[in-house]
Order: sequence, then C-alpha cells, then structure tokens
Amino acid sequence: MNFKIDNLQYCNWSREIFEINQEAGLDAIHVTIVYHEDFNELKTVLESWEKHFSNNSDLIFHGKSFKDIEKAKSENKTAVFFGFQNCSPIEDNIDLVEKVYNLGCRFMQLTYNNQSLLATGCYEKVDSGVTNFGKEVIKEMNRLGLVIDMSHSAEKSTIEAIEISEKPIAITHANPSFWHPVKRNKSNKLLKILSDSNGMLGLSLYPHHLKNGTDCTLENFCEMVAKTADIMGVEKIGIGSDLCLLQPDSVVEWMRNGTWSKSKNFGEGSKKKAGFPKQPDWFLDARGFSNLKVGLKKVGFSENDINGILGNNWYYFYKNIN
Amino acid sequence: MNFKIDNLQYCNWSREIFEINQEAGLDAIHVTIVYHEDFNELKTVLESWEKHFSNNSDLIFHGKSFKDIEKAKSENKTAVFFGFQNCSPIEDNIDLVEKVYNLGCRFMQLTYNNQSLLATGCYEKVDSGVTNFGKEVIKEMNRLGLVIDMSHSAEKSTIEAIEISEKPIAITHANPSFWHPVKRNKSNKLLKILSDSNGMLGLSLYPHHLKNGTDCTLENFCEMVAKTADIMGVEKIGIGSDLCLLQPDSVVEWMRNGTWSKSKNFGEGSKKKAGFPKQPDWFLDARGFSNLKVGLKKVGFSENDINGILGNNWYYFYKNIN
Repeated sequence: MNFKIDNLQYCNWSREIFEINQEAGLDAIHVTIVYHEDFNELKTVLESWEKHFSNNSDLIFHGKSFKDIEKAKSENKTAVFFGFQNCSPIEDNIDLVEKVYNLGCRFMQLTYNNQSLLATGCYEKVDSGVTNFGKEVIKEMNRLGLVIDMSHSAEKSTIEAIEISEKPIAITHANPSFWHPVKRNKSNKLLKILSDSNGMLGLSLYPHHLKNGTDCTLENFCEMVAKTADIMGVEKIGIGSDLCLLQPDSVVEWMRNGTWSKSKNFGEGSKKKAGFPKQPDWFLDARGFSNLKVGLKKVGFSENDINGILGNNWYYFYKNIN
Repeated sequence: MNFKIDNLQYCNWSREIFEINQEAGLDAIHVTIVYHEDFNELKTVLESWEKHFSNNSDLIFHGKSFKDIEKAKSENKTAVFFGFQNCSPIEDNIDLVEKVYNLGCRFMQLTYNNQSLLATGCYEKVDSGVTNFGKEVIKEMNRLGLVIDMSHSAEKSTIEAIEISEKPIAITHANPSFWHPVKRNKSNKLLKILSDSNGMLGLSLYPHHLKNGTDCTLENFCEMVAKTADIMGVEKIGIGSDLCLLQPDSVVEWMRNGTWSKSKNFGEGSKKKAGFPKQPDWFLDARGFSNLKVGLKKVGFSENDINGILGNNWYYFYKNIN
C-alpha cells in the first residue's frame, strides 16, 4: 500500500483546505498547532481543532499513530497529527511533556529560531547545544513517543539531540544548504548524521527555503532531491511542505517576533519582503504532489523511490517510533 | 550618614526575622521573592508580601528607590527591595519587564543555575552568552532601572551582560573563586571586569560559598574580603548574605529542581548533604554584621571602608542606577 504524507503544514485551516488536501490524496498531515503558546493557550488551540474535526468529520480526524494513516487511507480521509514548532507548551515543567502527549501531540521542536530552555535555535549567534533541562525532556519524549523535531534548531544542538535521543528524530521541514545556503537549511554533515541515525528529512516547499525562491523550478527542486538522496539514502527523505495557505501576513510577523522583542524582526524575510512569500506555480498547495511525482520521475527516481519520498518513508518513520 | 544593607536574603519570612534584621540595624534588605514562578505566580507572592507589610508596618516597608533606604534609616525600619533569582516571571514576553518593574521589583537574575531564555546558568556545560531575547531584555531593564543580577550565571554570559548593559550590574551573592573554587563563585577576571564597569559584588555568607563551609572562620572570611578589595577596589564590595533562615529543606530541593527534572539534583549540596547547611557561628543571622565589623577592622580596613562594605557601597549603587 502506498501512502501520501505532507509532514508539515501550517495553514489558516478551513474546510476548503481540508478538501484540497483530500483532493491531493494526502493520507496524513503533520500540522503545526503551536509557535509560542504556553500550556493553557495550547488547550484553547486544541478546542478549535475539536471543532474542525467535528465540522469536517467526512474529511479529517485526529491522528495519533501510524495505524491512523492506514485508517485514513481506507476511509479516504486525512489523518491530522499535531506538532509544536517550539517547546513553549511544556513551559519549564517536565511533567507537561506527558500531558501534551496525552492531549494527542506527536511532534515537538526543541527550539524555534531563538534559544529555548532546551536547546539553541538557528538564529542565535552561539549554539550551546542541548541544555540540562533539554536532556531530561529528550528522555521523557523518548519514553512517550513524542518525536523530536529540529527543523528550526542550530547545528550543534541538532547533532547533540540526535546523539542523546534513543529514538530517531525528524527535521520535518528544511532543505539542504548545499542547494540554498540559508540559516534554516541543513549542512551535508548534519544530513548524514541524521540519516545514519534513521532520522528523516521533510523537504520544504516554502519559498525562503528554495533556490530562487518563488521562481524555483520543479526540475531544479527535483535535482536537489536526487543529490540529497545520494547523501542520505532515498528512504530517509519525505515532504514537509511548510504550506501556509491563506494565512494573513500578521501571522508570519507573529511567528517571527512572538513577544520577545520591541523592535520588528523579519526572520527569513526582509523589511521589503516582510510577508508570506508566494508559492512556486508548481506547488501552490498540496495538489502539487502530482507535479512532484512527474518531476521526480524525470530526474530518474524509480516508482518505488517516488512513493517513498511522497509518503511511504514518513509512514515507516511513524511506524518505527511508536 | 552610614547605612547597613544586606543585599540578599531568602528567609522563611515572619515577624521574628524582621525583628532580627531591625536589631541588626539593617536599613535595607534585597529579598528573593521568585525562583521559578511565572508572572501569575509572582502576583500571588506579592500578595503575601502585602500582608507582611501591613502586619509589620512598624518594622518594614516596600523599598523602591535609594530614598527608601534613607527613609528606613530615619524611621528605624528596614526597606525591603524585591528581586528574582530567575527570569521566569517575564516568561517569553518583553512587555512583562515593565510590568514586574511597576509591581515594585528591582533586581532580576538573567538565569538561575540552568539555561534560561536570556542567558546561561553556572551549572550548564556550555555557556552561549546572552541570547537574542536576552539582549532585548537587558535594554528594557536598563530603560526602567531594573538591576541585572548575574549571581547564578555562567562567566561568559556575565561578561556579555556587563558589556551589553548600559548601567552597572550586580552579583548580589557570591564569593571569589580564588578563595573557594565552586561553580557559584567568581573568577578574578570576572570580578575585575565587574568592578571596572562600576558593578557590585555582594559577598555571601552561605556555607556552600565559604572556604571550609560551616567551619569557615571570621578571620579567614575577612582576609578574603581584603584580597577581594585589592582586586575590585573596596567600594565595589558589599554583603549579600544569602541567609535562608528557618527554611525547611524542602525549599532548597525546590530551588534546585524546580520542575525541570524527574531525577533529583543536589546543586551545591550532595546526596549526603542535601539540606540547607548550618551557618557559621559568627553569622547565624544578620546580627552577625557586628562580628563582620570587628573582623574587618582586625584585617586592617578603615572605618570608612567598613561602613562602605556593610552598607554604604550598596546605597551608592542604588543611588546610581535610579
């Protein structure tokens, strides 16, 4: 059986988007439900998801294990897995790790762009690695089966998290820096360590992570996938599109700034290009998976490899960590 | 006019202790009101202090500026200045810095022993210095007049905080490591940088910071003060006793562990000596200031120097930062 999985979306959720994902054939999506929220704010977010699930029960349901991906496939629905792009919901409290897991959350980044209580983000000048508290939290995440996601973390912190973690970790949405050298993309060295530890890379379709941004071509993207497969092995690669459909620009401003600064930070953007960038025309939304299929074939991937990249690899990752 | 100031106490507050401080002639104390509490928990702590002030208005009042030290002296009371040993009350929100200042808080450590969102604590393996958020917070603390306290911070973080801060900072309770080399004590290099920037060191009487612990002699302590004065200049030295009178051992366990670990950490103590250590017999409580006066004279300090160490130096520091 082949599965189609987008392992990172952060859309302005509505029935319209769930329909697009269904039309794209997605059996599972990992969605970001937290950037800066604390534990109580998380509970409010979860309430809004309860509404999405009850209003759209013909399209989506809350995914909690790899079996839900199989169930989604058989019911022609999309299983929605919850994740955080920051560790803010566990605050400074180790006991909250189990609580967020019990609330159905399955991925947590140890850091967003800045230093967290657990590790260092990719926008800090110095990377001190995993902290004392971070080590405790990794142990607890391992015990529960909450996946460590290092997409927005700095390199040393990521390597240490891989070393400390007894389970494979994920970088759910990033690209290799050999192709497009920005702070959020990852070095060959790191990708090798990640794949050697059975970790997964979700390739991003977010224009700031793409060579030539919005103008990136499908061909060029797929050539990058081929080179990345040479480094990591094709079975360690999936998609984590980072689609932010229909989000207003105020959201990206909040993502970047949270409440930590009085001045405005533009993160991956710039003062002139402060908002959400436009998607490349071959990946306007998840229906672009069909273009990826064509493009990956053109650069020489086998059907088996393509099915792996577009979903099966993530499926086996989910199966492995449960 | 001469003032007597103990610039760090964390006692199990009661009328009995306020009376001892009055008997000791203390015009001001800086008290720790937060270790791990968030903003809402801080507000609960402040309510308990409102009760202390109203029940003991003949002994204490809430100090907010150097003028309150003068007022306390003239009224034979002790002005109580509030401080945090961690930045937890500002959570991840720059706007809370002004709020805690407006609630009457005057000192904030950027870190306790572990990594915080602002800087690195002295119990972490790697010290990354002041973070992105930390730089913003220092700017805001400077603007308001909230004193940066680096007592529990790692060295690089402390040096960076001194460099970034436009106002002098404080190490309210620590000793030099040349005398007693433990993680909480400070190197000569750091003490020199601190004094060159007009910062203050509050010498600690907490046994874990003392050579020979509980058995440390008054003479040996005062010899250390003399050597420290040679490094820093006598006018940069005060007292921050770190007295924890009548606290149950459960409190020191909570101070060290907060909610960040499932296993128990013993911090400066050990499994065998997990509780609060016994004070040296010449400094059982603040009335030991009179013994310090005798001891400092014996090692050759002038009366003017002694008055500086026992309070005037802190008074001028408070005056300078307002």
